Amino acid sequence: MPEIRQNPATKEWVIIATERARRPEDFVSNEPKISDPPKYEETCPFCPGNEDKTPPEIMRVDGTNGKWRIRVVPNKFAALMPSGNGEREEESDFFRSMDGVGHHEVVIETPRHDISFGQISDTKAFEIVTAYHDRYIKLLEDERFKLVVIFRNHGKAAGTSLEHPHSQIVATPIVPLHIRHRLEAATRYFDDHGHCVFCRMIEMEKKEKDRVVLENEHFIAIEPFAARVPFETWVIAKEHHATFGEVSGAELKEFGKTMNSIIGKLRRGLQNPAYNLVVRTAPSSEEGEDYYHWHVQVIPRLTTSAGFELGTGVFINTTFPEMTARFLRKV
Amino acid sequence: MPEIRQNPATKEWVIIATERARRPEDFVSNEPKISDPPKYEETCPFCPGNEDKTPPEIMRVDGTNGKWRIRVVPNKFAALMPSGNGEREEESDFFRSMDGVGHHEVVIETPRHDISFGQISDTKAFEIVTAYHDRYIKLLEDERFKLVVIFRNHGKAAGTSLEHPHSQIVATPIVPLHIRHRLEAATRYFDDHGHCVFCRMIEMEKKEKDRVVLENEHFIAIEPFAARVPFETWVIAKEHHATFGEVSGAELKEFGKTMNSIIGKLRRGLQNPAYNLVVRTAPSSEEGEDYYHWHVQVIPRLTTSAGFELGTGVFINTTFPEMTARFLRKV
Repeated sequence: MPEIRQNPATKEWVIIATERARRPEDFVSNEPKISDPPKYEETCPFCPGNEDKTPPEIMRVDGTNGKWRIRVVPNKFAALMPSGNGEREEESDFFRSMDGVGHHEVVIETPRHDISFGQISDTKAFEIVTAYHDRYIKLLEDERFKLVVIFRNHGKAAGTSLEHPHSQIVATPIVPLHIRHRLEAATRYFDDHGHCVFCRMIEMEKKEKDRVVLENEHFIAIEPFAARVPFETWVIAKEHHATFGEVSGAELKEFGKTMNSIIGKLRRGLQNPAYNLVVRTAPSSEEGEDYYHWHVQVIPRLTTSAGFELGTGVFINTTFPEMTARFLRKV
Repeated sequence: MPEIRQNPATKEWVIIATERARRPEDFVSNEPKISDPPKYEETCPFCPGNEDKTPPEIMRVDGTNGKWRIRVVPNKFAALMPSGNGEREEESDFFRSMDGVGHHEVVIETPRHDISFGQISDTKAFEIVTAYHDRYIKLLEDERFKLVVIFRNHGKAAGTSLEHPHSQIVATPIVPLHIRHRLEAATRYFDDHGHCVFCRMIEMEKKEKDRVVLENEHFIAIEPFAARVPFETWVIAKEHHATFGEVSGAELKEFGKTMNSIIGKLRRGLQNPAYNLVVRTAPSSEEGEDYYHWHVQVIPRLTTSAGFELGTGVFINTTFPEMTARFLRKV
């Protein structure tokens, strides 16, 4: 019998389709896989020597040798632009639009063309997430922006066009409806129970154990009870903070290490799958709030969503998170 | 300057990314394209002669020659199963799950392996949507089911594994959160304005004209103001009905013709792109309601969603719907 599960934090339903259930191992040789890139690619705009192919640097981390270790630059094809006032315009009293004001930045994580999370040192991983954090804080000094979204697309199936390891940061002048709905679901839980649903989830997952992939001092990584796709992984900070901006230096250090370890497990276990990674944080206005709790969602792109998912928002997952968690624990 | 637009009916935001804007013509040669299949495929479980490869028929439409023209069969790898009572079970007071009770059916639209909407006669299209309607009505006689979702996946990039022209119908025991949110947005509009947001959208689109692809007696097809992806198309019934179940015979006839025409335009204009088609209807409990309005959403799969879309629900669209509408009008 298939099982319908609800995520307690988001209230989203998922169908675990036992009739077409697949073992975690079935995804190992699944297409699309990404072949190993070279260390250096002459035509890559993010490789050293081609710095003039990107817009001017916003931020840069230099190594002791004077060479850059990380560069943050505006996205050349930005989805949002910093000019404009972000005021709502009503077109014809019915259709609402506004200037696409915002920031869209690229974090070039390393001069190396070939290695990213899962293959780098924990020190390097710390350096990358520190750049995330620095830009997060800096971008929210501009009061036009409500939310900073940090994400990473790995592989063509995850929507990336450039191979060189990079992340993206977008500051938006709106709080997207989807984020509002998540905040609402978390608020409702808090109102009913008097504690944060994510804090409770951590407790429950530690008790049940079978969906935990790894745990350290500051983080826990789980395959969520209502995982939407095979190997969906959440990395949740144990300390309660509503926003990513509130993390301490010690947490940030272990965050880098944890991401490196989780992506490493996916990479080794599934032969370098395409994935998206998103830092889910409350908007800046909710800083310090009790009911929301920042975390990271990693979505391997091993399957294709279809009409049912598009039309209902309900995903059909062909694996049990308990099984994928066991698989990843062993990698 | 990029433009952020809000869909008045769903309240979802979309970024129209002018900095990376593409012309409608740019998508014509875009991968993945689907090659022409043969008329008959010996190993295809949906081709005539292989009827024993599917589970037993639920419904069948015969031609005058005694051969079948349409078959409806249970999905062999059903996401939901008809047995079970659909009651909520609480696992450990925190995690909620229930039996995956429901129906998951396949409409084998034609004995021909090679032709579907856009290539068939309007009579055939009417026959197919009539099968949708018959099953919709029949499935909701079972009171365990709240919603019937009718959808079609065309091409591998749209998540289909079988080439033979078919649609799918799923009856669910839950109203998905995503659907609830759409109902809420529509209800809020109705409460504020005293009329249906979709009825108003039809009026506005007829007045502004530039996003209309086609119009006939009972339907209007538009590229929505806040289209999420290039060539997203909505087919909206002009008569107000909350659910698909409420349409008249005359409407159903023109519905088949309209779908045939719209898919035909996408097919000819974009060289047979992969697409998903979803009939968006209110749950059965909302039949006859004033605030929701059934319609069809067609999503060509010409682009890949990435971390930003996953993390925010906000899509970055690189085309203007006004331009794709003009392109489709001319096809």
